Amino acid sequence: MSVTLKEVAERAGVSRSAVSRTFTRGASVSDSMRLKVEKAAADLGYAPNALASSLTTGRTRLIGLVSNNFHNPIFLEVFDLFTRGLQDRGLRPLLVNLTDETDPANSVKMLQQYSVDGVVVASSTLTPAFSQAFRDAQIPVVHSFGRHSSTPQVHVVGIDNVECGRMAARELAARGYTSVGFLGGPEAATSTQDRHQGFMSELAQHADITVSCSFASAYSFEAGRLEMQRLLQQDLAQAYFCGDDVLSIGVLSAIQDAGMQVPGNVGLIGLNDMEMAGWQNINLTTIHQPVKQIISSSIELIVAMLDEPDRYPEARLFPSKVIERGTLKPRLDSVST
Amino acid sequence: MSVTLKEVAERAGVSRSAVSRTFTRGASVSDSMRLKVEKAAADLGYAPNALASSLTTGRTRLIGLVSNNFHNPIFLEVFDLFTRGLQDRGLRPLLVNLTDETDPANSVKMLQQYSVDGVVVASSTLTPAFSQAFRDAQIPVVHSFGRHSSTPQVHVVGIDNVECGRMAARELAARGYTSVGFLGGPEAATSTQDRHQGFMSELAQHADITVSCSFASAYSFEAGRLEMQRLLQQDLAQAYFCGDDVLSIGVLSAIQDAGMQVPGNVGLIGLNDMEMAGWQNINLTTIHQPVKQIISSSIELIVAMLDEPDRYPEARLFPSKVIERGTLKPRLDSVST
Repeated sequence: MSVTLKEVAERAGVSRSAVSRTFTRGASVSDSMRLKVEKAAADLGYAPNALASSLTTGRTRLIGLVSNNFHNPIFLEVFDLFTRGLQDRGLRPLLVNLTDETDPANSVKMLQQYSVDGVVVASSTLTPAFSQAFRDAQIPVVHSFGRHSSTPQVHVVGIDNVECGRMAARELAARGYTSVGFLGGPEAATSTQDRHQGFMSELAQHADITVSCSFASAYSFEAGRLEMQRLLQQDLAQAYFCGDDVLSIGVLSAIQDAGMQVPGNVGLIGLNDMEMAGWQNINLTTIHQPVKQIISSSIELIVAMLDEPDRYPEARLFPSKVIERGTLKPRLDSVST
Repeated sequence: MSVTLKEVAERAGVSRSAVSRTFTRGASVSDSMRLKVEKAAADLGYAPNALASSLTTGRTRLIGLVSNNFHNPIFLEVFDLFTRGLQDRGLRPLLVNLTDETDPANSVKMLQQYSVDGVVVASSTLTPAFSQAFRDAQIPVVHSFGRHSSTPQVHVVGIDNVECGRMAARELAARGYTSVGFLGGPEAATSTQDRHQGFMSELAQHADITVSCSFASAYSFEAGRLEMQRLLQQDLAQAYFCGDDVLSIGVLSAIQDAGMQVPGNVGLIGLNDMEMAGWQNINLTTIHQPVKQIISSSIELIVAMLDEPDRYPEARLFPSKVIERGTLKPRLDSVST
């Protein structure tokens, strides 16, 4: 197997302790000793490993990334940013797939067995109670894309989903739609509930606009498509705020299959601004979720917790904004908002 | 932090060694002792961790998944299958992002520092030399989606890309196209080279069909779109075999933007059959790569190598097949192949 510390010590003609000290930050070792050890290590291709160093530090440098929707393309960006961010800091990204597991107790047990130093829960559908279970088990945790609260129990990094709902409603109103629909993700998801609440509260101020609501069973293409096929049997609204981008693409596909045009017959606005939303054959008007800042801020927080596990929980919220593409009709008046 | 073995021992009123034996497979411990320990462990929420057990076994149960294209949606399926497959076996999936790293020496060093028990390299663009570097460093390795050889140096699990090229050529010929194009992925990728070779060798038997070749800079939407925009300035072929599905979708988008129809004006066939290829607004005719079998077979092999690191290298090739959707004109004759 790989080169051992003992072999390096033998080749360098020094003690094992000298090799160990050479590779321990802050340990005392003379320059000539260091040179001998480094040469022997280079000759043999020795790399001090994380397992060995975890014995001295009690840390594994493993950070779990917990996700429960591996089929949403937004996660390509999340996985890419998360792995690179951890690697840059010498941390090791462990991927945890909770697609079939929603019991916090089982998940906590799994992460304990995995010996992670901390966990980033990346999900807009898992509840605050879920991430709190990790905190209760004394596993440092950050909930990315989670529901924020004015009395946070764990670190939450994300967007203000209530404000996003309001933003979508204002956008549809400003474009002169007089009947609009909320076509949300799963009703049990906190992100869906918050976007719905913001959307309805904003529209309560527009007596001239009628509102309908429905929910897809998941943040997925197929669920969005199915829900729009159902709506096509009824009275359609003039425009819809869809749960997220992938769901929007399913909705778009159902509308086009019915021989209707977007935005000619029906307008759509999504949420996330994932890479694919900008593909020219999708060209979705959507609300941008700043995934890059959310992930880098989540990593910053989990790293801070490694040294300070009792750090007081923060809610870090990043601003969202409408990205105008081709799925809504033009604004009535570019000045009005 | 988490509950320690010492705390469990104190609560159960037994020795630490008794706790340790209770949680070590095959170790001797009386039934009454086991009961006491298990009750104390349950009361305190103790879970024996992987770090502790790696001390006794010398194994970390970490398996690295090395990828270098996090923006290709096919990886959503790969990540999902890989993480679930490992979790089912009590192994831990460590994600390694080589987007900016192509030097095998650096990658090997990184994986050594990560203390993985084995590595699955999931890439159709990395060279055989890349996965051999892991073998040379005595890290068990399986190359998924890699180039197979009749004298394999490492385990390779995937498809026969030369045969896929032939299959695409036969398919275009059977549909009566008389000018066809190969629009490959990056020219340096072994998958591109093999598909190109198969495509050309099959068409060498069709004197009546003219062939053109070009290469996109990456397996990505943008690269496919750019390459097709360039081709649109020249004489277009009647149909193209595109590098993979995501590249095909970029090509499709460029053709539609130019006011042309698929398959009316230009035919397309992709490769992979990723989930999105079946979305009704994409509806891509493509060659199916059996990702599910490839990943489960890769996991089987890496697990086998944990017990038998010198296991003789195998090439496991799975059959591909054409999935007919809406981007090629009909076959001239349903009997001919």
